[in-house]
Amino acid sequence: MENKLFFQSLVASDLITVENRMREQAKDHHEDLSAALDHLIDSGGKRIRPNITLLFGKMLNGDLNSLITLSAAIELLHTATLVHDDLIDGSLLRRGIPTLNSKWSPAATVLTGDFLFAKAAFLAAETDSVPVMKLFSNTLSTIVNGEIVQMFSSRCNPDRNEYYQRIYSKTASLFETSSLAAAIISNCDEITKENIRQYGYELGLAFQIIDDIFDFTSEQDQIGKPVGGDLRQGLITLPAILYFEENSNDPIVKDYFENNCIPTKSNINPLINNIRKSNAIMRSLEIAKQHSEKSISAILRLPDSIYRQALIQMAHFVTEREI
Amino acid sequence: MENKLFFQSLVASDLITVENRMREQAKDHHEDLSAALDHLIDSGGKRIRPNITLLFGKMLNGDLNSLITLSAAIELLHTATLVHDDLIDGSLLRRGIPTLNSKWSPAATVLTGDFLFAKAAFLAAETDSVPVMKLFSNTLSTIVNGEIVQMFSSRCNPDRNEYYQRIYSKTASLFETSSLAAAIISNCDEITKENIRQYGYELGLAFQIIDDIFDFTSEQDQIGKPVGGDLRQGLITLPAILYFEENSNDPIVKDYFENNCIPTKSNINPLINNIRKSNAIMRSLEIAKQHSEKSISAILRLPDSIYRQALIQMAHFVTEREI
Repeated sequence: MENKLFFQSLVASDLITVENRMREQAKDHHEDLSAALDHLIDSGGKRIRPNITLLFGKMLNGDLNSLITLSAAIELLHTATLVHDDLIDGSLLRRGIPTLNSKWSPAATVLTGDFLFAKAAFLAAETDSVPVMKLFSNTLSTIVNGEIVQMFSSRCNPDRNEYYQRIYSKTASLFETSSLAAAIISNCDEITKENIRQYGYELGLAFQIIDDIFDFTSEQDQIGKPVGGDLRQGLITLPAILYFEENSNDPIVKDYFENNCIPTKSNINPLINNIRKSNAIMRSLEIAKQHSEKSISAILRLPDSIYRQALIQMAHFVTEREI
Repeated sequence: MENKLFFQSLVASDLITVENRMREQAKDHHEDLSAALDHLIDSGGKRIRPNITLLFGKMLNGDLNSLITLSAAIELLHTATLVHDDLIDGSLLRRGIPTLNSKWSPAATVLTGDFLFAKAAFLAAETDSVPVMKLFSNTLSTIVNGEIVQMFSSRCNPDRNEYYQRIYSKTASLFETSSLAAAIISNCDEITKENIRQYGYELGLAFQIIDDIFDFTSEQDQIGKPVGGDLRQGLITLPAILYFEENSNDPIVKDYFENNCIPTKSNINPLINNIRKSNAIMRSLEIAKQHSEKSISAILRLPDSIYRQALIQMAHFVTEREI
């Protein structure tokens, strides 16, 4: 078993209960749904979203059963969006392991995602909080609308505002919900709630910027995708935006934009190499760290506790993952 | 404008408000989502589900705004499942008009369905009723699980129990929710609630059996599908079950089962013609009428009112649509 950091070990046993609550959702349904859900849970990430929910909920002395239910709802919603994402991207690998879509038919994948949405909504309703339900459904709308904007908008637009809207939809919105919903079901005051919301929001932005840096800096075998995969798909993320801002006269950059950001054999590999070697990587990392610092500032306004310490550690961890 | 029946005209203006509430959901989102939603609403059916909700809600003096919101939630949930269904079936026509899937890419269609699920969940939360929320998410699980069972189970099984489970998942579950949710938000007693639930449940079964009869009796141009489309896909519905029960020694029937219900050129057209000419059609209609009668019996236990009269008319209408 891997060594856990403090913010993980503080809620490790609760996270196991969360996974069990997630697995239970396929009970009394078709056995292939159970198998799919087990597969998804077994292959799934660091549970950073439910980790946030549990730490804030425990900090505020929230009801543990409601927190477990809420955490399971959040992680299932996240899982459902990943299942449909993989279908939409046509990606066959996530985190280096086969996605459902490469093992299942597209139709079964659509239905599995729908089933997970239904169960996430059911668990959200099980918290017995109407505000949590509304927050949940709004978050799903935000995520889906963001994907539709990404699909239909002109991609060849290296614009920071558009980038921030996109990473809010894609990642920060659910981070925000992970923290805010914990505050809602724990009945804290409005100022505390706003600080907690801000933590999730800023940490989500930091998390996605780091992911976008990884896309340039990782080697293929680490995340199972080719280096610069976003740019290869015409998706312009922060490192590329910063690079383009400073190198607009570079012939390769000009060629890329003249070709409507459709990568060609002659421009894409040199472009990705140039970005990797440039200071756009470190500058992106600086921006991610600024967001992580803002998330820490927000909770420094709350009383000190082991949970606050853990959340501060988590915020550092997000920007200090090995790049 | 087509002539409306009493059960329709009694809530006609409310149904327009319901449609507007549905259209509003794409506000502040990508314009293509608005366009898709408008297209779906403009091409969509008789609104029988929200019609049920409105009639029961008004019968029980429920809050009109909550009833409108609930009705919009139900019709959006129905619409979302149709959008994903069309993708799953690969069907290019529904009600004779092009489906979203034939105009949009599969990826955009997945996302449009997801967006409608999110908005249906949001509207359900807007009723401020946690039991309605749970009912909603459970109904979606039931519908999706039914489709997964249908996708993965052995199809060559002319079994009435399995058929009833399938049509409950596919249709009766949402009819049941359309009536039961109206009762829940109108705060009636448990016995009234149970009678109302039963109306929706039985009417949903009748409705789907009639649809399955139509699949055999309609001509292609009426519903835009080939006659006997279900059986051509290996899907055995009530008319076929009844026919097979009485004609198990018919060489065409034997051939069909020996071929694992995979239709061949030589068996499928004669088989469909034989079922069309057989008394299995009238016997299926009789069974549908029994369910419709049960739905009427359930609400005859409630006090008389114009709404009860309208709901009785609706139950007759469902089984007396032109076959």
